[in-house]
Amino acid sequence: MTLMRVTFLGTGGGVPSISRSLPSIAISYSGELILFDCGEGAQRQMMRAGTGFKQKLTIFLTHLHGDHILGLPGLIYTLSMLDRRHPLRIIGPRGTRNFLEVLFSIRFGKLGYEIEVREIDGGVAYESRDFFVEAVDASHTVKSLAYRFRERNRPGKMKVEVLEKLGVPRGPLWGRLQRGETIEFSGRIIRPEEAVEPPRRGRTIVYTGDTRPSDEIAEFSRGADILIHDATFGSEFEEDAVKEGHSTARQAAEIALKAGVGRLYLFHISPRYEGSEERLLMEARQIFPNTHLAEDLLSIEVPLPD
Amino acid sequence: MTLMRVTFLGTGGGVPSISRSLPSIAISYSGELILFDCGEGAQRQMMRAGTGFKQKLTIFLTHLHGDHILGLPGLIYTLSMLDRRHPLRIIGPRGTRNFLEVLFSIRFGKLGYEIEVREIDGGVAYESRDFFVEAVDASHTVKSLAYRFRERNRPGKMKVEVLEKLGVPRGPLWGRLQRGETIEFSGRIIRPEEAVEPPRRGRTIVYTGDTRPSDEIAEFSRGADILIHDATFGSEFEEDAVKEGHSTARQAAEIALKAGVGRLYLFHISPRYEGSEERLLMEARQIFPNTHLAEDLLSIEVPLPD
Repeated sequence: MTLMRVTFLGTGGGVPSISRSLPSIAISYSGELILFDCGEGAQRQMMRAGTGFKQKLTIFLTHLHGDHILGLPGLIYTLSMLDRRHPLRIIGPRGTRNFLEVLFSIRFGKLGYEIEVREIDGGVAYESRDFFVEAVDASHTVKSLAYRFRERNRPGKMKVEVLEKLGVPRGPLWGRLQRGETIEFSGRIIRPEEAVEPPRRGRTIVYTGDTRPSDEIAEFSRGADILIHDATFGSEFEEDAVKEGHSTARQAAEIALKAGVGRLYLFHISPRYEGSEERLLMEARQIFPNTHLAEDLLSIEVPLPD
Repeated sequence: MTLMRVTFLGTGGGVPSISRSLPSIAISYSGELILFDCGEGAQRQMMRAGTGFKQKLTIFLTHLHGDHILGLPGLIYTLSMLDRRHPLRIIGPRGTRNFLEVLFSIRFGKLGYEIEVREIDGGVAYESRDFFVEAVDASHTVKSLAYRFRERNRPGKMKVEVLEKLGVPRGPLWGRLQRGETIEFSGRIIRPEEAVEPPRRGRTIVYTGDTRPSDEIAEFSRGADILIHDATFGSEFEEDAVKEGHSTARQAAEIALKAGVGRLYLFHISPRYEGSEERLLMEARQIFPNTHLAEDLLSIEVPLPD
């Protein structure tokens, strides 16, 4: 089993507070490190959380508002000072390349490695052996993407007792069955359904970035193990949420319910709730009981589905 | 007496560490707030230190390397989200305006107030009623300035016993004497030296920014109450210090000794000393005993001179 770890580096929104740094989420999986957004302070939060500055690092930006990206230049130059040579992948909406080009035109220092920028509009944003990342439009004041991290389905377990009874020796024939092939052994046809459990569903994490509640995001989040949703405000500021392109805690919970996710994390918490965040949690739990508040440096291991 | 407070917001150099944020120093004096440099994370350190986001805020940049300036965009946008209307002054070397223009071309968000940029080459950088700030060339790999914060001299105390003996009534005549005028009272000439103590020397803080040890900086620091000096390395890395335009702790102490300052703070500490910083302190104290390590969020009140 491969460990999948989600670490909240920064969980505030717009303006940081004493307890919340600006948005950034790290996913550690199978030797790779994924960052969703990179708010100011992300590099130091990575040090505190001990995520490491992995060679296989890919950064996904939801949109280009300052609070989600201003930790990027510092991180980029720190990686260079730490002698990084491996290219760094940065994936984001249109405008990401210009942002980085403008940034580098300032020449804060020298850069010892390549940056590979990819601008996307949605769809599959990144593929690796064991997982892939997809994007869909969120609903914010500017073009903004939500991301879905999906572990690939893993082959089903072998039905060892059945196979031993049939006398099929461990080895290539087991592998063919596990890959879904029908085999012939000692004159008997064996179909994979007989010898192998159904494939095991991969785990899924959805991060909405900044967004209004949206049917598209609910659909995108269907069945996710973890949904990390914009919950900038409580319901008492719903008008502000509409105006600024955000969601209330209650709306985040409604999406979680609709999408049938496993667990909801309220994210992008406005600094105005410093000291009174429980009210956001209570409001959301009335709709969706398995709701949690994202907290800076909270790190959770995503359990395998049953 | 006016309180003068120095707060170290970030004291690391190049790359932050778990215990040190990137360079930024706040001076609170007479209702104004001065920032020297604005490394990534400065805004959140200001919240933690409780410096407040004062209307009268002036930011001085020593040079345009990323570790000294990348906290500026986030701070600028946070001030706007906190409804600042008062203009913000930013003073730095040539290139500061271009840096800001490039930055704003990215449009992270809207800005509700004016930014007044002033590029300087040295000399008086800023004047206020009770203090002024001067700059001189430091010796780094790029154009870099050292700054001196000087409280204006305050008039001497009135010699109350003398004045009462002479029968001079409190009021305008006392004021004229204190301003250095000679007066005539009851047919007698009274010179200010008779009636007023000598002017009281204002307090001085020098911040070098990134620099090699230099005679010009020693001269600039002469008699300062507090010298905050680059001490990126210990003597064992003197070659790196030369190559990268920095000072060792020992060299910082030598400048402090030469300049006859009151107290030295070692600053811009390399992350490689995380956990072994005492050696920098010991090395410097052999030369200049009143040496201290700058620490993040350390806040000191600068005492009045005797």
